[in-house]
Amino acid sequence: MTTLDDCRKLDAQDPLRTLRDHFEIAPGIIYLDGNSLGAMPKGAVDRAVEVVSRQWGDGLITSWNTAGWFDLPQRLGDQIAALIGAGTGEVVVTDTTSVNLYKVMSAALRISAADHPDRRLVVSERSNFPTDLYIAENLCKELGFKLQLVESEQELAQSINCDLAVLMLTHVNYRTGAMYDMAAVTASAQASGALVVWDLAHSAGAVAVHLKAANADFAIGCTYKYLNGGPGSPAFVWVNPRHVDRFWQPLSGWWGHAAPFEFAPGYEPAKGVARYLCGTQPIVSMSLLECGLQIYQASAAFGGMPALRAKSLALTDLFIDLVHQRCAKHNMRVVTPVDHARRGSQVSLEGGDETDRNFSYAVIQALIARGVIGDFRAGDGKRLHDIMRFGFTPLYLGYEDVWNAVEHLRDVLDSGEWKQPQFRQKNAVT
Amino acid sequence: MTTLDDCRKLDAQDPLRTLRDHFEIAPGIIYLDGNSLGAMPKGAVDRAVEVVSRQWGDGLITSWNTAGWFDLPQRLGDQIAALIGAGTGEVVVTDTTSVNLYKVMSAALRISAADHPDRRLVVSERSNFPTDLYIAENLCKELGFKLQLVESEQELAQSINCDLAVLMLTHVNYRTGAMYDMAAVTASAQASGALVVWDLAHSAGAVAVHLKAANADFAIGCTYKYLNGGPGSPAFVWVNPRHVDRFWQPLSGWWGHAAPFEFAPGYEPAKGVARYLCGTQPIVSMSLLECGLQIYQASAAFGGMPALRAKSLALTDLFIDLVHQRCAKHNMRVVTPVDHARRGSQVSLEGGDETDRNFSYAVIQALIARGVIGDFRAGDGKRLHDIMRFGFTPLYLGYEDVWNAVEHLRDVLDSGEWKQPQFRQKNAVT
Repeated sequence: MTTLDDCRKLDAQDPLRTLRDHFEIAPGIIYLDGNSLGAMPKGAVDRAVEVVSRQWGDGLITSWNTAGWFDLPQRLGDQIAALIGAGTGEVVVTDTTSVNLYKVMSAALRISAADHPDRRLVVSERSNFPTDLYIAENLCKELGFKLQLVESEQELAQSINCDLAVLMLTHVNYRTGAMYDMAAVTASAQASGALVVWDLAHSAGAVAVHLKAANADFAIGCTYKYLNGGPGSPAFVWVNPRHVDRFWQPLSGWWGHAAPFEFAPGYEPAKGVARYLCGTQPIVSMSLLECGLQIYQASAAFGGMPALRAKSLALTDLFIDLVHQRCAKHNMRVVTPVDHARRGSQVSLEGGDETDRNFSYAVIQALIARGVIGDFRAGDGKRLHDIMRFGFTPLYLGYEDVWNAVEHLRDVLDSGEWKQPQFRQKNAVT
Repeated sequence: MTTLDDCRKLDAQDPLRTLRDHFEIAPGIIYLDGNSLGAMPKGAVDRAVEVVSRQWGDGLITSWNTAGWFDLPQRLGDQIAALIGAGTGEVVVTDTTSVNLYKVMSAALRISAADHPDRRLVVSERSNFPTDLYIAENLCKELGFKLQLVESEQELAQSINCDLAVLMLTHVNYRTGAMYDMAAVTASAQASGALVVWDLAHSAGAVAVHLKAANADFAIGCTYKYLNGGPGSPAFVWVNPRHVDRFWQPLSGWWGHAAPFEFAPGYEPAKGVARYLCGTQPIVSMSLLECGLQIYQASAAFGGMPALRAKSLALTDLFIDLVHQRCAKHNMRVVTPVDHARRGSQVSLEGGDETDRNFSYAVIQALIARGVIGDFRAGDGKRLHDIMRFGFTPLYLGYEDVWNAVEHLRDVLDSGEWKQPQFRQKNAVT
């Protein structure tokens, strides 16, 4: 059986533990929701003041050049590229994940239509993040493709055939934390002649991603989860260099133009991934992302992304073990894969007392009241059950945090605290 | 002849002059580029610290509800609606101007195709802001329309015929400051059976706009110019209620869904303009916009938008008069209409010494070196000449500022200071 002392020893031996000092997290909070909104880097407040007061207030329009605003999408993109196995100059930060998915899916469908006009099938999972499905559903309708949503990996394997144009998957599932073998799935789909688009929302900064080694075609992702960019910080987009100059995305704005300051009336896309830019970006929100990315740079001294991934697995292993050891009588199921190769950086639990429809929701609320912040994702009343999600960010979580989180969970369950009415009332959650 | 004393008297009598106290503008700066990037409201730094430190750092994900992040697009939209003659609940703040134009043009073209399948013409001006033309060019190609760019108002009048599907115009031209009669142009195009899309980038907060009184169909606009939202603050979109539920825009993300927290796999658009939302917004940049909009609310005590418009016209009248009185020998042409009904909130000058190709650029650089910040827009070497742009924001500019700006201009011209080599070297400008 694991003890609190074991956890403290693990923390003492962990060279990554000092990275937590880069974050401002209120005392008493165990933050297990970095997969929804990452915690605030300590540098963010000063950066905000700098950008607002000095760059905007004093520098005014000159800051487009002198403060490097115009280079931000590429500068931040290069920092993200290093975390996802992409090359320098291949990633830009811009717009939202949904808008970027629209861009890359538009390009992927056009490329497929040009190369394989007979292929009209787009495949994704019914359990994919809904906004991805909304974007794909609409684009398929517009461009004459059929969107097929598979329910299982068996169905997915069967769908990879000579009708498949584009396979659109999220690398780590937002509900279950299950992770695909990106290289294997990509190779299989490409062998059939299809293109593969990956959503890295729950991957970038959380698990090892090697886009080029996996030979992926397109990828997009979110910066306000594991990358700690701040609420709604702009998203990123990567396009394999073999595709990037073939087609351009339909959001053809000035920032993606070959000569953005010539004010020519006709559109000519920039070379490379810069053509995936469109309009003027929210500079303050974008600038704050750099604070999050700088902590990844600081992690390089301790082994960088491979060391962070190893710690993430150790943290989720510990959480799963402690839940089994200390909460066994409540019959919760770990729905996240036990296999390291298939696990993201979160653990999701399906609850326990199936006779109580509000169980998972109420347990999360009771934990939040104790300062243990996870989140709840509702099922669909059919195939998908309600789940409790716990995200583990190795940059700011330690082993004792995991111990304490499970102790609170055990207390909430053993005492029946979760049954208190204030925890059972549902509000809008995100 | 107008004197400095006259200008000081006008300032002393101006009830709006106290609004300048809401802005942080460095001493010695006369800021005539608020039509490119508005000045910083004093409250912006504190707001940034509040949003970053308290809402993000302390509140974390709970701030989606407790800090009102989820309501921001509508709350800010309502404040803008009051400035542009739109109704409460009809405007949302989101994404960029270019992306929003893509949304409304997509909807407008689909509505026109449904109602008048024979109409395949989209008309705009060759001198429209280029990014608007890029968006339209590409959408027309995709959806089977022809984009016709007119070169003059005569050509525009001729283009309003039974082939016209959508007329897409910018209300105030970014180069010349010429303003359309929105009601008359809208009525004329609609009488022919067309829809009209207005870009209010240089109108919102600068001139009186009455979208509903003008019976416009769609409008989008920018918040970081006259509305002082900060660099790249998100844009806005308005859709006439008669159209809003007929079609939805193609960027079908979670925030525009009828039930955004139900995580349903199929897309169903929200009722009303909320369906023009898509992905998660940059909350910090968006929150800062409220500081700019609050100054408009403060202006209500002094007459609000009509009083601001009257002052704007008085400032541009004064600038034009003083340029004529004090810089006459340099033969500059005022290209902005003299007619109040046709003038935006800027004055553009074409320069003088036509034998010197760098004249306008160098004069602007010399003025900037003196703290008088206007900007330069290059011509196309053909129809469009180089221009010097001077934007007049009545919230923070006074009559003595205008006097001083023209004095600097006169000095730069009379002394030949603009011919100094450091002012003639071109850098990237925005």
